[in-house]
Amino acid sequence: MHFASDNTAPVCPEIMAALMEANTGNTGSYGADALTARLTARMKEVFETDLAVYPVGTGTAANALALSTLVRPYGAVICAEEAHISTDEAGAPEFYMGGAKLLLLPSPDSRISPMQIESAMARAIDGGVHHVLPEAVSITQATEWGTVYAAAEIGELGQACRRRGLHLHMDGARFANAIAHLGCTPAEISWKAGIDVLSFGATKNGALAAEAVIFFNPALAAGFERRRKRAGQLWSKMRFLSAQLLAFLENDLWLRNARHANEMAATLGRGLAALPGIRIVQHVQANEVFVAMPEELIESLQAEGAVFYRWIDVPGEPNPVVRLVTSYTTTAADVHRFVQLAHRIATRVVEPA
Amino acid sequence: MHFASDNTAPVCPEIMAALMEANTGNTGSYGADALTARLTARMKEVFETDLAVYPVGTGTAANALALSTLVRPYGAVICAEEAHISTDEAGAPEFYMGGAKLLLLPSPDSRISPMQIESAMARAIDGGVHHVLPEAVSITQATEWGTVYAAAEIGELGQACRRRGLHLHMDGARFANAIAHLGCTPAEISWKAGIDVLSFGATKNGALAAEAVIFFNPALAAGFERRRKRAGQLWSKMRFLSAQLLAFLENDLWLRNARHANEMAATLGRGLAALPGIRIVQHVQANEVFVAMPEELIESLQAEGAVFYRWIDVPGEPNPVVRLVTSYTTTAADVHRFVQLAHRIATRVVEPA
Amino acid sequence: MHFASDNTAPVCPEIMAALMEANTGNTGSYGADALTARLTARMKEVFETDLAVYPVGTGTAANALALSTLVRPYGAVICAEEAHISTDEAGAPEFYMGGAKLLLLPSPDSRISPMQIESAMARAIDGGVHHVLPEAVSITQATEWGTVYAAAEIGELGQACRRRGLHLHMDGARFANAIAHLGCTPAEISWKAGIDVLSFGATKNGALAAEAVIFFNPALAAGFERRRKRAGQLWSKMRFLSAQLLAFLENDLWLRNARHANEMAATLGRGLAALPGIRIVQHVQANEVFVAMPEELIESLQAEGAVFYRWIDVPGEPNPVVRLVTSYTTTAADVHRFVQLAHRIATRVVEPA
Amino acid sequence: MHFASDNTAPVCPEIMAALMEANTGNTGSYGADALTARLTARMKEVFETDLAVYPVGTGTAANALALSTLVRPYGAVICAEEAHISTDEAGAPEFYMGGAKLLLLPSPDSRISPMQIESAMARAIDGGVHHVLPEAVSITQATEWGTVYAAAEIGELGQACRRRGLHLHMDGARFANAIAHLGCTPAEISWKAGIDVLSFGATKNGALAAEAVIFFNPALAAGFERRRKRAGQLWSKMRFLSAQLLAFLENDLWLRNARHANEMAATLGRGLAALPGIRIVQHVQANEVFVAMPEELIESLQAEGAVFYRWIDVPGEPNPVVRLVTSYTTTAADVHRFVQLAHRIATRVVEPA
Repeated sequence: MHFASDNTAPVCPEIMAALMEANTGNTGSYGADALTARLTARMKEVFETDLAVYPVGTGTAANALALSTLVRPYGAVICAEEAHISTDEAGAPEFYMGGAKLLLLPSPDSRISPMQIESAMARAIDGGVHHVLPEAVSITQATEWGTVYAAAEIGELGQACRRRGLHLHMDGARFANAIAHLGCTPAEISWKAGIDVLSFGATKNGALAAEAVIFFNPALAAGFERRRKRAGQLWSKMRFLSAQLLAFLENDLWLRNARHANEMAATLGRGLAALPGIRIVQHVQANEVFVAMPEELIESLQAEGAVFYRWIDVPGEPNPVVRLVTSYTTTAADVHRFVQLAHRIATRVVEPA
Repeated sequence: MHFASDNTAPVCPEIMAALMEANTGNTGSYGADALTARLTARMKEVFETDLAVYPVGTGTAANALALSTLVRPYGAVICAEEAHISTDEAGAPEFYMGGAKLLLLPSPDSRISPMQIESAMARAIDGGVHHVLPEAVSITQATEWGTVYAAAEIGELGQACRRRGLHLHMDGARFANAIAHLGCTPAEISWKAGIDVLSFGATKNGALAAEAVIFFNPALAAGFERRRKRAGQLWSKMRFLSAQLLAFLENDLWLRNARHANEMAATLGRGLAALPGIRIVQHVQANEVFVAMPEELIESLQAEGAVFYRWIDVPGEPNPVVRLVTSYTTTAADVHRFVQLAHRIATRVVEPA
Repeated sequence: MHFASDNTAPVCPEIMAALMEANTGNTGSYGADALTARLTARMKEVFETDLAVYPVGTGTAANALALSTLVRPYGAVICAEEAHISTDEAGAPEFYMGGAKLLLLPSPDSRISPMQIESAMARAIDGGVHHVLPEAVSITQATEWGTVYAAAEIGELGQACRRRGLHLHMDGARFANAIAHLGCTPAEISWKAGIDVLSFGATKNGALAAEAVIFFNPALAAGFERRRKRAGQLWSKMRFLSAQLLAFLENDLWLRNARHANEMAATLGRGLAALPGIRIVQHVQANEVFVAMPEELIESLQAEGAVFYRWIDVPGEPNPVVRLVTSYTTTAADVHRFVQLAHRIATRVVEPA
Repeated sequence: MHFASDNTAPVCPEIMAALMEANTGNTGSYGADALTARLTARMKEVFETDLAVYPVGTGTAANALALSTLVRPYGAVICAEEAHISTDEAGAPEFYMGGAKLLLLPSPDSRISPMQIESAMARAIDGGVHHVLPEAVSITQATEWGTVYAAAEIGELGQACRRRGLHLHMDGARFANAIAHLGCTPAEISWKAGIDVLSFGATKNGALAAEAVIFFNPALAAGFERRRKRAGQLWSKMRFLSAQLLAFLENDLWLRNARHANEMAATLGRGLAALPGIRIVQHVQANEVFVAMPEELIESLQAEGAVFYRWIDVPGEPNPVVRLVTSYTTTAADVHRFVQLAHRIATRVVEPA
């Protein structure tokens, strides 16, 4: 019953096989190999547009490199208060951007609105040289609360950005889960909706260590390769990053994995919602379930071997909140077992006879 | 005939097998796994001392993180003019250190001396607050010119550092090749000789993407884990970094690989030295051969399919210099073929009848 | 009727005279002069303790240099959401700290509490290496809302910091105004209350361009001089910074100036509070008055020649808020004229017959 | 006999008078004042072209801000090995540029050549993403060795820069001394010769603390104002910076001061050159004299009250080298006295009866 994170899962067999297959003979290093060349072509097909794609090893690197390319050191990025780039990357964006700031917008479900962007910009401009100047907005899809922006919502954010000359970045660590939820094409929630740069995640969804930074306007990518090298993020044996990403896209592996994880989360959410004393605190749209439950229930579940993390408190909710994450390896049996266990304990704890 | 670099080689079968083996079940992420725990124990055996070890994905990251832990932003690092950290890491050390400088010492073979350190320190101190203050020395073993510091030489550098309160860092991207050349223990050319922090390389010697930063005084490592995360260098599926490093050390794989590469370089060097119009410009001690040869010979060799890079000029040497790198995959047949080819062309080009 | 800021005022005659007097003959540069030596002795008297003092030219430099000395690049500073270091220094703290973050605490009057610090620390520690680690707290005295921390309140913040190993910094751009309000000694609201480092302001209170960074534990100042030089903040003709600060302290000039400014603000506040349609939105404790008034009144006042800025909105207050700042040059006549004018307009605008 | 530096001198009476005169009434802060507005107009006259000018308090700030505007964090600046930005600014350029590197060119008199620039560029480009990319060249006029570039020489550097897409910066801490030596117009050795940005020095030549960054292509200055604020270099009472610079330019005060200093240096150089055992090691073109003399002579001169610094060794010169700097306050009597003293001691020390 592993619900701690989608990165505790192993590597997909298909991706592991691709690594084995890539391991033949000498080839050019630092990206001068056939697989890396093929990756660009493949991504253009997947996204139905021209683009520039750069593989890196971690999601934090992808986000920080992307933002550093969009924002000058005296600039700023507008994002949600609970954005991963703000709370879980140990200051990597600020480091890579050379000290530029994140301007945080409060949001109950980690989604932000065009009006919030407009108002943050107005205040920044009003401050003149004394205030940092936002040069980009970053949104997460699916969000840190497991919610998903609809394509139209992203489109409105994109328009708000264009009006103010802001770049729009998407942290797509769980981009596949968002697509699986929306049933849309990758293009519809990225460049067609105004996204300039996407951190395209694979590690949480079956890869060993592989993410990609995708620029839908390749002109924006000037300097990216130097930044990646300077950040120690340029793999000498790059073929092994590209091989993972190619296998990830092959036969829709990425979407199949995401659909499975989402289904498991949905099942889990439905199962728990029916139990006494338990409240699902966010819409379950991707592969995360946020659940408020009594302290005693949390401890009992963990004592029975369930692995998961406590999350931040939800205003107005008396019980602590936990996060349950499903992955492409989560089984229906695991979910069933967890719900049954929760049911048994909740009945005892919450509604003692 | 691939002599471009040791990073154009594939991954060692033993290391690939270890990746497969590590790929079972859910496990703690970010280093909270059994393999990472075992790695520390194993490194302590290999180096015969207490230490702290942190896996990362690239050599540039290892060096830049190590130096950023030793040097404050207003400090400096003393190193050779041709040090990889100065010429081939795109400014990564300066980026990670927050702007601290590298103070470059000239050296004909990329090895620096205690006297040079002493004199750089004297000048820096004389400059007071107007000059940056060196806080570390970085040496490369084997060096960028394929030469190797003897244990006693490192010992003297270590003493020079201690006298001045400097930390001593070793860029060990080809550490195994140095050990294979010297026939010493890892301890003898690291902590016993005064090295505080070692960038322990595996990628150039058979790994997929794996390096380790080793602190022989674990107290020096305070803050390292935060720096690694903040640099986007903390793998979520860390087990796959640790698995590579464990396999690398298993049954002396790392030393066997290095010995083979060194032998191939020695054979190559001997073969070329005997040819007319060709000069080996550095002692061949590790897995690199630097050769001055006529332009026409270079072009003919490349036209025949040999892959290698031109290097920087050597003062007083009229011909251009090329670098030939061997790896654990280089075969005696490859070497033989290259030397024969060079012989045939050189005879024609250099000594026309 | 200049109420835009205390930095629109000219230089105090006493300080200008001191500059003239310092302008004789050659003397050591970069602080090797008699005035700078005397400044340290004088500050020790004023603060009744050992300390290290470093003059700089601007308040932003003082704050950013102070914080960069206390916090490592992977660290963070806890401060109020409306802190000057967050909203009005264009990212200088992040720049000087090498990318460390500010963690913002909401506060209705820009004062923060020990409980808020405790809770920010708990969350940060809970995040492990994924979250930045606070290493300092910064408070402003008097605050950006013109309010003043009592000595006991600072003492409690100091204790909260010590419990968590945090340094405590005070942005004292209006430190003199706080002392004038509290009627305490400089020691009582600085080191005796747990302040480690103080940005001691003079420019807003009569100097030409002079601030000082004061370390009450001189050991904390290691590296400060190098940081100041590296930041381009070390004046070659330092005697002219020290001369300003010495004159500022001479015969309590700094406190006399501050008392006058505070009295003018108090008078202004009282006068405005009595008018219809106007609300004083913060306690007037130092030299700033924050007033909510109808749009029409603001425009009429400005049309009549009054100079002041609109401020940020106050939640629940329907009218816009303006900031009125008094200085050592504000005259009772100015204040009277402004209040009279406001009275005349307010009567017409707010309470038409 | 003060020959330690030109920054040990007091402030010119004319400049002090201008500060007094500027000290009347309230005025806009942060540059929104009449003097700052007038400064731009005045500089356009002096340089006979459109330009953007930004006053700052120190020369290090001027250089570091200028370079940070021209060079991205992953870029580099080409300059002479002995450039002030490399040896005497404590890493400020690297700090302000966010870690970009200085690529140092050796030069016997601190002047660099177009061929050196060309060769540094060729090597950098050859290194691809592994090597930092130079984006600017910085030269010092007059140089750190007291020598002066002719207008034609700068013109050739300017052409070399344009061919490679490099910006050309001039550190003009002693710009007035160069003009006084060359007898040219300010335009001829700045924008007409290809200089993009000039650090225009005043402090060493009579100001209290005032330098200006001048962009001859105002479009290049985008972002400068934010960078200046963020660096803590924006004075709130800016009128006092502008007042100094206006007085500096008034009635050619700057050139009169520089001519005097140069004449004193020339007299000093001629006087010393005639003495036994003494060698002038650089052409005396501005206000600095570099003299090799026996250790015993140095010590005797200092014992007699002469104040000056030892400088770095000159290759091939057995004696230590000292630097003698003259300023607008140096008197002919001082120079005469120093030469007489040196004569008396040298005769005794070097040529004993």
